[in-house]
Amino acid sequence: MAIITKEDILAASERISPYLHKTPVLTSSAINKIAGCNIFFKCENFQKAGVFKARGATNTVFSLGDKEVKQGVATHSSGNHAAALSLAASLRNTIAYVVMPSNANKVKIKAVQNYGGKITFCEPNLKSREETLINVIAQTGAVEVHPYNDVRIIAGQATSAKELIEEIKNLDIIMSPVGGGGLLSGTALSAHYFGKNIKVIAAEPAGADDASRSFKAKRFIPSINPQTCADGLLTSLGSITFDVIINHVSEILTADDAEIITAMRLIWERMKIITEPSSSVPLATILKYKDVFAHKNVGVILSGGNVDLDSLPF
Amino acid sequence: MAIITKEDILAASERISPYLHKTPVLTSSAINKIAGCNIFFKCENFQKAGVFKARGATNTVFSLGDKEVKQGVATHSSGNHAAALSLAASLRNTIAYVVMPSNANKVKIKAVQNYGGKITFCEPNLKSREETLINVIAQTGAVEVHPYNDVRIIAGQATSAKELIEEIKNLDIIMSPVGGGGLLSGTALSAHYFGKNIKVIAAEPAGADDASRSFKAKRFIPSINPQTCADGLLTSLGSITFDVIINHVSEILTADDAEIITAMRLIWERMKIITEPSSSVPLATILKYKDVFAHKNVGVILSGGNVDLDSLPF
Repeated sequence: MAIITKEDILAASERISPYLHKTPVLTSSAINKIAGCNIFFKCENFQKAGVFKARGATNTVFSLGDKEVKQGVATHSSGNHAAALSLAASLRNTIAYVVMPSNANKVKIKAVQNYGGKITFCEPNLKSREETLINVIAQTGAVEVHPYNDVRIIAGQATSAKELIEEIKNLDIIMSPVGGGGLLSGTALSAHYFGKNIKVIAAEPAGADDASRSFKAKRFIPSINPQTCADGLLTSLGSITFDVIINHVSEILTADDAEIITAMRLIWERMKIITEPSSSVPLATILKYKDVFAHKNVGVILSGGNVDLDSLPF
Repeated sequence: MAIITKEDILAASERISPYLHKTPVLTSSAINKIAGCNIFFKCENFQKAGVFKARGATNTVFSLGDKEVKQGVATHSSGNHAAALSLAASLRNTIAYVVMPSNANKVKIKAVQNYGGKITFCEPNLKSREETLINVIAQTGAVEVHPYNDVRIIAGQATSAKELIEEIKNLDIIMSPVGGGGLLSGTALSAHYFGKNIKVIAAEPAGADDASRSFKAKRFIPSINPQTCADGLLTSLGSITFDVIINHVSEILTADDAEIITAMRLIWERMKIITEPSSSVPLATILKYKDVFAHKNVGVILSGGNVDLDSLPF
């Protein structure tokens, strides 16, 4: 089993700090009143590339040797990982080769291009994505960087919760959304290494609840035909993330799309910050299961803020 | 002539600090690159009630004597001043009586009600607003609080620029939008009292450019039939604000609605924060008149973030 140590997370923190933001922690008395608990939002929507994924991608790219990184890095992604990896590659003065489905969101395509990522389009299915990536790597000699099932990625994502725990001393609970599980694994490991009896609770869309079902069954259940507006949380867990989650997470709660959109709108209206649907799932579950959180100090990783303003869900 | 002293602003700062936020200053390397200068955004969109007006209203309400404030405070307003005054009154354990036009925005009505303000609706014209307010004051004994042409209001609004100047030491320019001129007057006075050779430049919608024309003509020209999406900037200057602006402002630049909306969208997309059209006018003028700002350190008061998410201008 791959083990991510406290030292891995400390090293990641040091490695990425010259390049990325130490994101602010914001609170809202209005939302606390509605929720019945004290929520500390760690604003990864303000992170470079608008998403926590800049942490893992930057840690991974800067963990590679000079020779290894020279031919570039590569991935397939329809979303935030593509932009984050392109940013990380540009910071290291190398190239990111990104395989994207032909129907990918225009805003996400533009973000990758802005950071200098080189896009190869493929058919919008997993088979075509994987085959196209193999060809791109064969042609370029680039190193593949997986979006979540990689110890360097997880150690990078863990740095957000580490910062939050260091800033807010008395957290009872820490929450993150779960898709592939990179952010959740990192969050759980930081709670374990840097916190004192902090419970880790994950939040997942009801329409993509493979992690919740895997967690309950204690065996890996893949995500098949997920349906949710939280487009960052469609993927299945990986072998490494599944293992960390089973061992370090207390509970996975789910909320449906209407609840997610209500939470997202509440954040926009009361906090005046822009969050994507995926990052609004933890608040949706807090508002749904108020008893679990009553009067507690709850840290929430607001994972990202990349939305298409031309097609908002409300 | 009414004189607002350095001590008035220092006193306002002390008076309001237990109740309001010291708002953060945010920067965006992406926007700096596009604009060709270094912009420091003072985020009054994160202020209580979502707008800088909480500063002036709170300063004024807490400047009143216990006896004076007992019967409440009153104003007519279709927008942010109504909510800010309702908030200030609730903080002082008194009541705000607000005259609002019958066609006022539902979001603004809800905000006033949330803060416990008592609304009297009137016809949507200035004559009905003023007459209704006279009646409300006659019936309640409340103290009228003008939205901008009041030294206590101006001293309160000045505290935002004071904080910005204290935090960012080497500003060359400081900007605010101008409507009635309360924020601009306060900003100009703080630049004068607390800054060192800071130039004050105002930004105004081209479709409501009465302040720009008044400034050039050096005589008061009222705002007649203004047409702009920046709905916080429709009003004419007041006698006090006109005087301060003539004496302490260097320039008033204008931008049209398309330019304002482009700037607003840029802030939303790149900074992941929600600003209303009125607060996006300064950035619109920076992007329009790049030569004026090239390589300068520019402070911008982001005045507020109260938008109706159901009717965005883009």
